[in-house]
Amino acid sequence: MKELYVAVVGPSAGTPAELAIGEAVGRLVAEAGAVLVCGGMGGVMEAAAGGAMKAGGKTVGILPTSSRLEGNPYLTVAVATGMGEARNAIVVRTADVVIAVHGEFGTLSEIALALKMGRPVVGLGTWELRKAGESVDAIVRATSAEDAVARALQLAAEAREF
Amino acid sequence: MKELYVAVVGPSAGTPAELAIGEAVGRLVAEAGAVLVCGGMGGVMEAAAGGAMKAGGKTVGILPTSSRLEGNPYLTVAVATGMGEARNAIVVRTADVVIAVHGEFGTLSEIALALKMGRPVVGLGTWELRKAGESVDAIVRATSAEDAVARALQLAAEAREF
Amino acid sequence: MKELYVAVVGPSAGTPAELAIGEAVGRLVAEAGAVLVCGGMGGVMEAAAGGAMKAGGKTVGILPTSSRLEGNPYLTVAVATGMGEARNAIVVRTADVVIAVHGEFGTLSEIALALKMGRPVVGLGTWELRKAGESVDAIVRATSAEDAVARALQLAAEAREF
Amino acid sequence: MKELYVAVVGPSAGTPAELAIGEAVGRLVAEAGAVLVCGGMGGVMEAAAGGAMKAGGKTVGILPTSSRLEGNPYLTVAVATGMGEARNAIVVRTADVVIAVHGEFGTLSEIALALKMGRPVVGLGTWELRKAGESVDAIVRATSAEDAVARALQLAAEAREF
Repeated sequence: MKELYVAVVGPSAGTPAELAIGEAVGRLVAEAGAVLVCGGMGGVMEAAAGGAMKAGGKTVGILPTSSRLEGNPYLTVAVATGMGEARNAIVVRTADVVIAVHGEFGTLSEIALALKMGRPVVGLGTWELRKAGESVDAIVRATSAEDAVARALQLAAEAREF
Repeated sequence: MKELYVAVVGPSAGTPAELAIGEAVGRLVAEAGAVLVCGGMGGVMEAAAGGAMKAGGKTVGILPTSSRLEGNPYLTVAVATGMGEARNAIVVRTADVVIAVHGEFGTLSEIALALKMGRPVVGLGTWELRKAGESVDAIVRATSAEDAVARALQLAAEAREF
Repeated sequence: MKELYVAVVGPSAGTPAELAIGEAVGRLVAEAGAVLVCGGMGGVMEAAAGGAMKAGGKTVGILPTSSRLEGNPYLTVAVATGMGEARNAIVVRTADVVIAVHGEFGTLSEIALALKMGRPVVGLGTWELRKAGESVDAIVRATSAEDAVARALQLAAEAREF
Repeated sequence: MKELYVAVVGPSAGTPAELAIGEAVGRLVAEAGAVLVCGGMGGVMEAAAGGAMKAGGKTVGILPTSSRLEGNPYLTVAVATGMGEARNAIVVRTADVVIAVHGEFGTLSEIALALKMGRPVVGLGTWELRKAGESVDAIVRATSAEDAVARALQLAAEAREF
């Protein structure tokens, strides 16, 4: 059975609290034996990759830049797309499930692309979506890093059973 | 002075009301002398392109498919990216401003990518964004096709003045 | 019947002779009623687009840059991919046939991608391909701009008949 | 000091002799402590990844497909671009140096893109490039898998020293 891949998406410049959540999420992804996918840059991407790598996990950073060397230091493998924000589609396409930790517009684009592609999205304090004044329940809300990773792994495993 | 480019994004399968709005937006973009950019497929993309082309305007469809011939019939130029949803980044990058007409997750990804890239977004009955229970006023709300195009052109012109 | 799309690829800094050929190719493509596709930048791309536009034709430039405004002045439509050299795949995918005018490694990549995708390639003084000391006759050799465009249009029309 | 990344490019359906060379190249890349980058599919890509993984090395496959699960079984990390042949640009951009083992037009596009991006290319029985009847010595010719990997690592190390 192939490993699950979990993308962790979030701001490139997070608050200390956001970074701590990102690191915990990364650690728990690695402890579950899943591969951590991220955008490869700083902030929550780096915190999650660091958490995963320190726990002995595998991490992949899919960078917007033309040089692989601009990635954060916690990448088992760094991929240089040279495509800027268009790489967000590759981040989520590569993953079985996406965990969004807070985040700005880049994170929102990854949430939206994941939902468009049928990848489940688990949210920790991230964007809330509404249309015509009504909430759209597309993001599975988690209450902690533990809860987020547990839900993500369950959703990914369910998505595999087809 | 180069022409302005206005992207119109929306669902690939819209309601009759959404398609009518899309067509009006396309027509008004063309009447203002701007180039209409869209994802090249059906629904609001086709309605907007049709509105623009019937008004004598130029339209470009940036397709997710590998064949240019899968685009809608109202494209002055069709571009076959073969990149699937990753082409959404090219749609908004090519435009000076984005008008979102209703829409699903694909449209949401285009709104988010545009905001990330600094392209202003005007919304007609589209997604509402919130974080931590508070509305995020990133999308300029319009009340009609006329209002949307007027605001979009003004925002695009302002963005050019730097 | 939809128009044919002809990509003209070549160096971004051509010699006067190469630019003259590029301009003639662009003019003849336009006079035949086909759309000219190019990479949107300078050199042969600009010469071909200029030749086509001055003859009343339609041109599309698929730019490597993040800004549409960096394209040459002879583009009916400019598309900003922000993807660098990865945009070469979009240039050839969008076309029915490719005409290569001299060129360096970027041009060679477009020739190779076109052949991989099944788009016929007509060459004017461009790369010659060999394997194991034997010539590989994948590029249709033309002797003049007129000959190149005539062959390209015939190959594109044949490719459509399936 | 960060690891070197070596891309091995070649046909998706190689002869037994080509596959044997690919496997030896992959093994030697891994034994040198470098990361093996490939297009993730079959043929020489699979042989090289298999050689590297069996030698305890790290491998990354950058797939043209929309699903990560379509990659060959020898990938430490698989990336699903969903971009078709446009992913060739990412394969070579991610690497410090490229080794081309025989190959068809896809391989030729990777050679050309690498040379365009300034990545050195080492060839084993692959394409020969000529212009105007003269050989263009852009590909460093190797005589064996050992020779190819030794030259590639030296070229990559030199490229790093700037």
